[in-house]
Amino acid sequence: MRAAILPRTGRPEVLVLAEVPDPHPAPGEVVIDVHATALNFADLLQRKGTYGTPAKLPCILGIECSGTIHALGPDVQGWKVGDEVCALVSGGAYAERVAVPATQLLLRPHNVDLISAAALPEAACTVWSNLLDISGLRAGDILLVHGGAGGIGTFAIQAGRAIGARVFATAGSGDKMQRCVTFGAERAISYRDEDFVAVVKNATEQRGADIILDNMGAAYLARNIEALAPDGRIAMIGLQSGRDAEIPLGRMMAKRGSLFTTSLRDRPLAAKARIVEGVRRDLWPHVERGRILPVIDRIFSLSEMAEAHCYMERGSHIGKIVVSVRS
Amino acid sequence: MRAAILPRTGRPEVLVLAEVPDPHPAPGEVVIDVHATALNFADLLQRKGTYGTPAKLPCILGIECSGTIHALGPDVQGWKVGDEVCALVSGGAYAERVAVPATQLLLRPHNVDLISAAALPEAACTVWSNLLDISGLRAGDILLVHGGAGGIGTFAIQAGRAIGARVFATAGSGDKMQRCVTFGAERAISYRDEDFVAVVKNATEQRGADIILDNMGAAYLARNIEALAPDGRIAMIGLQSGRDAEIPLGRMMAKRGSLFTTSLRDRPLAAKARIVEGVRRDLWPHVERGRILPVIDRIFSLSEMAEAHCYMERGSHIGKIVVSVRS
Repeated sequence: MRAAILPRTGRPEVLVLAEVPDPHPAPGEVVIDVHATALNFADLLQRKGTYGTPAKLPCILGIECSGTIHALGPDVQGWKVGDEVCALVSGGAYAERVAVPATQLLLRPHNVDLISAAALPEAACTVWSNLLDISGLRAGDILLVHGGAGGIGTFAIQAGRAIGARVFATAGSGDKMQRCVTFGAERAISYRDEDFVAVVKNATEQRGADIILDNMGAAYLARNIEALAPDGRIAMIGLQSGRDAEIPLGRMMAKRGSLFTTSLRDRPLAAKARIVEGVRRDLWPHVERGRILPVIDRIFSLSEMAEAHCYMERGSHIGKIVVSVRS
Repeated sequence: MRAAILPRTGRPEVLVLAEVPDPHPAPGEVVIDVHATALNFADLLQRKGTYGTPAKLPCILGIECSGTIHALGPDVQGWKVGDEVCALVSGGAYAERVAVPATQLLLRPHNVDLISAAALPEAACTVWSNLLDISGLRAGDILLVHGGAGGIGTFAIQAGRAIGARVFATAGSGDKMQRCVTFGAERAISYRDEDFVAVVKNATEQRGADIILDNMGAAYLARNIEALAPDGRIAMIGLQSGRDAEIPLGRMMAKRGSLFTTSLRDRPLAAKARIVEGVRRDLWPHVERGRILPVIDRIFSLSEMAEAHCYMERGSHIGKIVVSVRS
C-alpha cells in the first residue's frame, strides 16, 4: 500500500510517499481501507521530533481516519467488512490501510459523508474526555474555548452549545471570530485585541468560566486562573505558548480551581475504548441531529501531505485539514 | 456563654476569653453544647489575617467540634436534643455553644469518646473530599501524604490504608516518621534528609504516586509532579511553603497529571452536606471498626486557647490539638 512516511524528523518536506507492506489485524483489531485522514497539531510536533516520547523512525503519522472495514481480526464482534466508519488511531493513518482496535471505531454518522467523517474522531474524543468526562460539563455552565476556530475548538464550541452551556471562544482574526459565533459561541474574543478575562467576567456578572479548554499552556495559565469561576476547571490539551509557567496557587486555591493536563495519544487501550464509548453515547447523537458538524477548511491528497503540514503551520485554517487518501 | 474571641488579628495572645450571647438555631440548624473543639492550620491563618477573605472582627474561630445537641431549629429531622455528635462548623466552635446546619452533623462513633470525637470532622471531611471524591482513591493505589504526622495527615494515612492503598508519608523528625508507620504508612520519608521523589519511585518500580495529598504548595509542586504516576493527581490543601510556583506543564502533561486546589471552609452548604454524607457512608464505618482512630497530641482548655495556638505554631505536635470546652 501507499503511505506518507516520516523517515526522519524535520520540516514538512521530510514526509514522503512510499510503498509499504499492508497492515494485518491483530486480535481485536480491524483493518480499515482509509478514505481520508485529518491533521492534528500533535502530528506537527511528532514530525519535528518535539512531541513527548519520540516515535521510532521511520514511521507513519496520523491519529484519525475514515474508511471502510477491509478485514476483521480474531475476536472482533459487532462490526463487519464493508462497514463505513471513522476511528481514533494510534498512529499510521497517513496510509491506504491501517489496523485499529475495534473499540476505537465509530460508525459513520448517516448525515456526514465519508471524507468529512475523518475530521471527527480526534476532536470528538478530546472534547468528550476533557469537557464531559474530566470536567463534567453540564447545561448552564460557562465554557471558554481557546483556539475556538481550530479543529478541536470548532467541535468544542458546537458540543458546548449542544449540551446547553454558554460558550465563549478566543480567536485571532475577525474571520475566525465570526465563525466561532456561527458555531454557537455567545461571544468571540480577539486574543490580540481583547482581555479574555475581562470579557468573560463582564459577561457573567464577574463569575467567570466554569470550564476552560486550553491549548496554549504557559502564557495563558495565570490569566486562565483569573478567568475561572469558583470550583472552575482548566482542561489543558496543548502547550502552544510554552511549557514552563508561573502558577499563582493562592489565587487558584481561593477558587478551589483544578488544572487537568491531558493527551489522547499515549493513553492505554482501555482508556481509549472508554472515551470512544462515551463519544458514541453522548456526542454522536448530536452529530446525527446536525447539532455538531465537521468543520473542514481544506482537503489535500495523500501525495500533498508536506503541503498540508505547511498549510497547518501557517495557522490560518478554520476547523480541520483533511487529507483524502482515495483521490 | 463563654467563647475564645478574636477581637483583632495578630499573635496568639490576641485570642481572649469573653462572655458573648448564645447562638440560636436558624431553620435547618441545631445548637450544640460544645464539649471540645480542635485546632486547624486555617485557624492560625485566620488569626493572623492571612487566610483568603478576612473574617469580620470580632469573631469566634473554630471549624469543628464535638458535643451534645442542645436545641433544634425548625425543619431539622433525624436528630434529637441530647444526641452526642461531632460537626463540621463554619466558624464559631471556640465557644460553649455553636449553631450548625444539621447536614454537617456526624453521630459520635460508639468507640470514640466525646472529647476525641472533636478531632475527627475536619480531617475526615478533608480526606473524603480530596482523596475519595476528587481523586478517586481506590484499593491498590499508591498514595503519598505530605505532613503525615499532622492532623489531616494522620487521618489520611489511616484512611488510605483502610481503603487498601499503599501509603507513603513525609515527616520532619524520627519520632513523627515512626508514628506515620504505626498509622499504616508502608514507608515514612524524612523531608529533611531524603528525596521523596526518589523514595516513592524506587519503592514502586519507578511508577510514582497515583495520588499526592499536599499541604505544602509552591516549594513542593515541581517535585510532586516528578513523583506522580501516569494519570496521577495532586490534591493541594495547603500552601505552607508558598503561594507562587513554577510549574513544569510539559512534564505534567506527559503524565496526564491533575492538580486540584481545595479548601473546605468557604464551600457552599450543599457541598459541605454532600461531603459529610460521604464521610458518614465511606469513612465512619472504618472509624467504628477501629481502623481509623483520632490521633490527639494534647488537650488544652478553652482559657488556654492562646497557648494552644502557640503550641501548634511550634509544629512539633503529632495529630490533632484539642481544646476542651467543658473543663
